[in-house]
Amino acid sequence: MRAGDEEISVSSTSGSRPTSKDAVINLDHGDPTMYESFWKRMGHRGDITIAGWQGISYFSDVTNLCWFLEPEFDHEIRRLHRLVGNAVADGHFVVVGTGSTQLFQAALYALSPPDTPHPLSVVSAAPYYSSYPAVTDYLRSGLYRWAGDASAFKGNIYIELVCSPNNPDGSIREAVLKSENGTIIHDLAYYWPQYTPITHAEDHDIMLFTVSKTTGHAGSRLGWALVKDKEVAKRMIKFVELNSIGVSKDSQFRAAKILKAISDGYELPNPKNKYKLFDFGHLLMSVRWKRLREAVKVSGIFSLPEFQSSYCTFTGKRTETYPAFAWLKCEKEGVEDCENFLRSHKILSRNGKHFGAARKFVRISMLERDETFELFIERLSSLT
Amino acid sequence: MRAGDEEISVSSTSGSRPTSKDAVINLDHGDPTMYESFWKRMGHRGDITIAGWQGISYFSDVTNLCWFLEPEFDHEIRRLHRLVGNAVADGHFVVVGTGSTQLFQAALYALSPPDTPHPLSVVSAAPYYSSYPAVTDYLRSGLYRWAGDASAFKGNIYIELVCSPNNPDGSIREAVLKSENGTIIHDLAYYWPQYTPITHAEDHDIMLFTVSKTTGHAGSRLGWALVKDKEVAKRMIKFVELNSIGVSKDSQFRAAKILKAISDGYELPNPKNKYKLFDFGHLLMSVRWKRLREAVKVSGIFSLPEFQSSYCTFTGKRTETYPAFAWLKCEKEGVEDCENFLRSHKILSRNGKHFGAARKFVRISMLERDETFELFIERLSSLT
Repeated sequence: MRAGDEEISVSSTSGSRPTSKDAVINLDHGDPTMYESFWKRMGHRGDITIAGWQGISYFSDVTNLCWFLEPEFDHEIRRLHRLVGNAVADGHFVVVGTGSTQLFQAALYALSPPDTPHPLSVVSAAPYYSSYPAVTDYLRSGLYRWAGDASAFKGNIYIELVCSPNNPDGSIREAVLKSENGTIIHDLAYYWPQYTPITHAEDHDIMLFTVSKTTGHAGSRLGWALVKDKEVAKRMIKFVELNSIGVSKDSQFRAAKILKAISDGYELPNPKNKYKLFDFGHLLMSVRWKRLREAVKVSGIFSLPEFQSSYCTFTGKRTETYPAFAWLKCEKEGVEDCENFLRSHKILSRNGKHFGAARKFVRISMLERDETFELFIERLSSLT
Repeated sequence: MRAGDEEISVSSTSGSRPTSKDAVINLDHGDPTMYESFWKRMGHRGDITIAGWQGISYFSDVTNLCWFLEPEFDHEIRRLHRLVGNAVADGHFVVVGTGSTQLFQAALYALSPPDTPHPLSVVSAAPYYSSYPAVTDYLRSGLYRWAGDASAFKGNIYIELVCSPNNPDGSIREAVLKSENGTIIHDLAYYWPQYTPITHAEDHDIMLFTVSKTTGHAGSRLGWALVKDKEVAKRMIKFVELNSIGVSKDSQFRAAKILKAISDGYELPNPKNKYKLFDFGHLLMSVRWKRLREAVKVSGIFSLPEFQSSYCTFTGKRTETYPAFAWLKCEKEGVEDCENFLRSHKILSRNGKHFGAARKFVRISMLERDETFELFIERLSSLT
């Protein structure tokens, strides 16, 4: 593993609220704590009680190829995709995982020939999600290995990771490589209406999702894959079996209730509009991006990506893109390392180098609690 | 991966109750459904309600080395070990995992030199747990690889897995290899009073436990490791971070409540003795083993391991060993493959070959629901 990857680590301020005006503001991780206030507002609609005797068995549904997938969770996943229209779930197998991180590895395992003499190359166009290299390489697998920026890749056998909207920069992406022998994993963690207009239902061979970025429940460690090919799904399931003998039922019970509460919020009569997660998320993200762009303008030393608006089939309106992360570039003369510069002002961010990009860039989480975000805006505005 | 490992698979009868007198009886897995009746008897003492807004963040406690470990779960783990006296938790770090399966891999990762030119050999004395080879080798890691039976191993650099009481045969074990350069992982999943007398508190460098075999909650996919060395604990934590960015909080919230209910059953006034998990488990296992030994005697074509009784420091009595699995040997002339023989009588078991042993042996789960176990005894008694 390269040294750089090791530097992303949990510090004493991760996940916590700043305690004073001059406290450290930690925006290194994409911790989706901004969703707490929505779920508090929901009252008991998202609560779940699990009896002591429930969910004891390893098995959830042996009539399903994915025998550790809880039927209610499967049902609510399909219902939510139909409601939002962001992905085609019909005709796909649902494979549940301990976060989409586990499913990413399951997909690498499923797509790598088991008898390969050389590890298969895993690539993604820079800037790519900072965890891809380390998660691909930490076990030094003989099946696959990280081969860097897809745009610089030579060869026609590979796995290309396409994250869209992209982590870290929010861009809408398609595969950059074209080869019949190449395979693609689509990471659609952020293809939800609070972050980006839903322009069509994605319909790829392997599509990864996670509750962390859909509903905010990162602590549940729960993701799902929509997989077209039965043999690929079977190998992904085998991976999860070998890696962790299935996935927490408790998280699945709870997530089924959480997804149900979201769909109910749109599909059941609800005149006050109070319980609509995507509306909540979209409004909050729009306000935050407005505040961020203003702060960047005031300081005059940063730049941000610009996005075009599109017609969103879910909202029925033309909407803007409000990514879960801000891909901030420091334009200040003499500053080569934006992360260091921000850290000197007690703002923790993730260095562009981890994403295969220049150190002038950092990734900033836009998903923290209000008070953390407000303090960040205040501090950013004061930088010169 | 060897072909044999692939044969252990989930069938349409896994985890289900037999539907008729001549139904298939599936005892291939160690599905601990016998615990359901205990938790039903507990009423609401094991229930938990989780609010929609709880546990959203990735982070549980950043003041703890294991930042994704819930403090209540940590507390109840240490309390339970003090109560039972089976392992020394004080002075050890608690690392939580998605089942002990994930922690086993975390330990392999932690104990393997990151810069090793050749994979480190992983060994265990036969008969060893059937998942060890496949879980070690499925990613063809450059860090470690399965090297088979510890008793046949030549070399002095290795990781030895010591499972005690042993899965599949219930024997009490120590490491068979002795080398200063060797390391040991102690898998203590079954070192609990329902299965074996507690003779002393184990105090090893890495000790693995799982709620599946402690309380029955296999569906929660939750395990913990007690780890003496800080650097080893750190690398195990790094593995869980890369493998799944932590462990389900929902499972940890719930398991904390479940472990608390068990300890409360012993430590709070409770004149009726109704809520003592280890008493329940020990009584049920003793009855089952008596019934099994009788059935084996009646049929006359099998044999079982014999165990010596010992003084149990937890119960304060001399107690027998009642393993979670029966390691059954078919002594019938002309039968070379016990699994096939039993399958012809619609009993599914796990072949001795998966454990590095002869096909005359099978492993039988002793942890299924009463009706399944009773039907098994009836059918076994009728075999000739």
